[in-house]
Amino acid sequence: MSSSGLEIGVVARRAREASLLSAIIPTERKNAVLLGLADSVEAAIPIILMMNNKDVADAAKSGHDERTLARLRLGKEAIAQTTARLRALAALPDPVGVVTLERPLPNGLMARRERIPLGAIMMIYEGWPLITLEAFAICFKSGNACVLSGGNEAAETNGTLGKFIEAVLKGCGMPTEVCQVLHRASREESLALTLEEALIDLVIARGEVELVRAVRAHSRVPVIAHDRGVCHVFVDASANLEMATRICATGKISAPAACNATECVLVHRDIAPSFVPAMVGAYVGAGVRVLGDAEVVSLAPAAHAAAPEDFGREFLSLTVAMRIVDGMDEAVAHIDRYGSGHTEAIITADERSAAWFTGRVRSSCVLVNASTRFNDGFQLGLGAEIGISTQRLHAYGPMGLEELTAQRWIVRGSGQTR
Amino acid sequence: MSSSGLEIGVVARRAREASLLSAIIPTERKNAVLLGLADSVEAAIPIILMMNNKDVADAAKSGHDERTLARLRLGKEAIAQTTARLRALAALPDPVGVVTLERPLPNGLMARRERIPLGAIMMIYEGWPLITLEAFAICFKSGNACVLSGGNEAAETNGTLGKFIEAVLKGCGMPTEVCQVLHRASREESLALTLEEALIDLVIARGEVELVRAVRAHSRVPVIAHDRGVCHVFVDASANLEMATRICATGKISAPAACNATECVLVHRDIAPSFVPAMVGAYVGAGVRVLGDAEVVSLAPAAHAAAPEDFGREFLSLTVAMRIVDGMDEAVAHIDRYGSGHTEAIITADERSAAWFTGRVRSSCVLVNASTRFNDGFQLGLGAEIGISTQRLHAYGPMGLEELTAQRWIVRGSGQTR
Repeated sequence: MSSSGLEIGVVARRAREASLLSAIIPTERKNAVLLGLADSVEAAIPIILMMNNKDVADAAKSGHDERTLARLRLGKEAIAQTTARLRALAALPDPVGVVTLERPLPNGLMARRERIPLGAIMMIYEGWPLITLEAFAICFKSGNACVLSGGNEAAETNGTLGKFIEAVLKGCGMPTEVCQVLHRASREESLALTLEEALIDLVIARGEVELVRAVRAHSRVPVIAHDRGVCHVFVDASANLEMATRICATGKISAPAACNATECVLVHRDIAPSFVPAMVGAYVGAGVRVLGDAEVVSLAPAAHAAAPEDFGREFLSLTVAMRIVDGMDEAVAHIDRYGSGHTEAIITADERSAAWFTGRVRSSCVLVNASTRFNDGFQLGLGAEIGISTQRLHAYGPMGLEELTAQRWIVRGSGQTR
Repeated sequence: MSSSGLEIGVVARRAREASLLSAIIPTERKNAVLLGLADSVEAAIPIILMMNNKDVADAAKSGHDERTLARLRLGKEAIAQTTARLRALAALPDPVGVVTLERPLPNGLMARRERIPLGAIMMIYEGWPLITLEAFAICFKSGNACVLSGGNEAAETNGTLGKFIEAVLKGCGMPTEVCQVLHRASREESLALTLEEALIDLVIARGEVELVRAVRAHSRVPVIAHDRGVCHVFVDASANLEMATRICATGKISAPAACNATECVLVHRDIAPSFVPAMVGAYVGAGVRVLGDAEVVSLAPAAHAAAPEDFGREFLSLTVAMRIVDGMDEAVAHIDRYGSGHTEAIITADERSAAWFTGRVRSSCVLVNASTRFNDGFQLGLGAEIGISTQRLHAYGPMGLEELTAQRWIVRGSGQTR
């Protein structure tokens, strides 16, 4: 499907019609597709890496920065992680038809609430091409049809993955329209699809702030945003400092461009003199640039002076912000002001501090003595995720199978009226 | 607060700040407010009816049609029904803090998911002034702050109810900012509030299609729509015809302007010769105008010929559409094409037909042998409802307490990293 030849109305109607079919595919047939896809992707790792290399080279040539390249570049391990997620999804129960409530009413009616698919889902995303596989897998297992429109910088990789999906669907006797991977769709074409409110049930926007803002401003279909992860770690006065150093360090280093990476460390003043020099040393030793407030810099001259706008920034690179706070109140006020509602952690040995922090901070995931990087659908047992929602509506945090369903009522009676 | 003096930024910021307070009010104190409100409203029924009479008279004078007047006019029974709902809400469990999942993870982390309020909710609505009380009560019990902007045709009634809410909050030592009832806000002012995406978490639009469309087109905050209820009853060949007549008749007559009123009856061809004349007779006898297709009119000349656009219409008056269909496939195709996803019912004695219909039709509530009018939060045991969502996202169908919460994760560890 070429950019010029994309007929928006046809894509939308096809998605809508496919959603009537995908809603009633039996669980075991859906699982067979996911397992088949995992196998065929694994068998084709060299081809996928070759196409990915092409995308990365093209992106570098056209001047994309290292942050974009990091989000684009695949390795064997990442692909293996994704096929593991496809298999995990196959092993999870099917959410469609699950009864979430059953209640006899005083007038003799029997009411039950059950899960149905959302319908036709459109996803507009950037970077990381393996999203294509995971997004299809989650939509498909939850009975939805999907239209996937990835970034053009990943066009070759996404196109290749789309062909694997199509081939496996065909091989399993499924309608291939349940997953339409758009090839080199322009921004205008993707946005045009978000106007099809009668045919598309949900738009997921996953990427940088500008993309999400454009989709939100344009769409007539309800939008779920997966955008900024400005994740904080607060190191309390009672923290085990060795543990705190490890959690803060790996939280940035293990995946600097991930949305659940630690972007800002808040340090309780009481422990700053011992913790800050050690922490800055650990970061600098691992190649991380630390942007600290004046006190941080005076305690650890290897840190650079932060500009005001460095707080609240999602660096997506080997950079982290650091600030000293008077205590929990100031830490929470900082998070309220600068956070994005994604993930925050507290490192503390004090039960009451942990309870106060988790009660007061209302991000999609709040952790005690653990890395921000655990806010992830696979890590939390959802099998995989189609994104991490930073809005409270519909789904907050990692979106897995259940989050791609709606609940509706079925009521049985014997002639009741009112 | 007068229309000209309304400072949008102040209202939005006040709602946001109030939402931090409302989130942590203990259950028993919230219940005391609801019970106090029920008492004070009951004690003031004559005043409320007086103000309501003024609104109705003004609306009639300024040329509003009977449909609008019907949605505006209150009676003692309606107020008593609402105070019963306030008491039912007080008796229901508090959704805030409810743990919906608790799971140890293989790496020793303990993850749980719990309900938190959505935050600051803005509701833009028309007609029925008792929505003001129910909307406040549901938002408040679920820990949310709210801004309520009702239609100007109900300004006096809504203003009076707002004063009762304020007085009860004050009397119970609560911050009155948790409920801001806007007085005679212009459409522009209400819409301006929907741009405050950093301060308002959810906009509920409840009213006619034009209002909902305007809010959706304008808002930067996620919107839940409560708009059209184009509810169908399909009378199957095996239906008990006496039961079918009763369900179809009361489904329209008992509340012609309600969103869950029956708007269209689909009749299986096999029983049309006996059912249609009896049904049309029952309707006409009760003052209901029937708009039928050619076959309906030929079987029952008291019916009027329907225009094509009469199918898919929400009449909101003593009018109903009727059509003869070849069977379930045609009935479902009609609903797919003309329905609004609100409520549909089948009248049948055949178990398999019931199962097929409820499986195939995916409206927010599908009923077997019962009236469409049971798709209502109070009837389904939710205590009350802030609206009936006709979109699948976040909440589908009646929105009660749970539907005004989000779920977030709390994860406790002992130093885990990845």
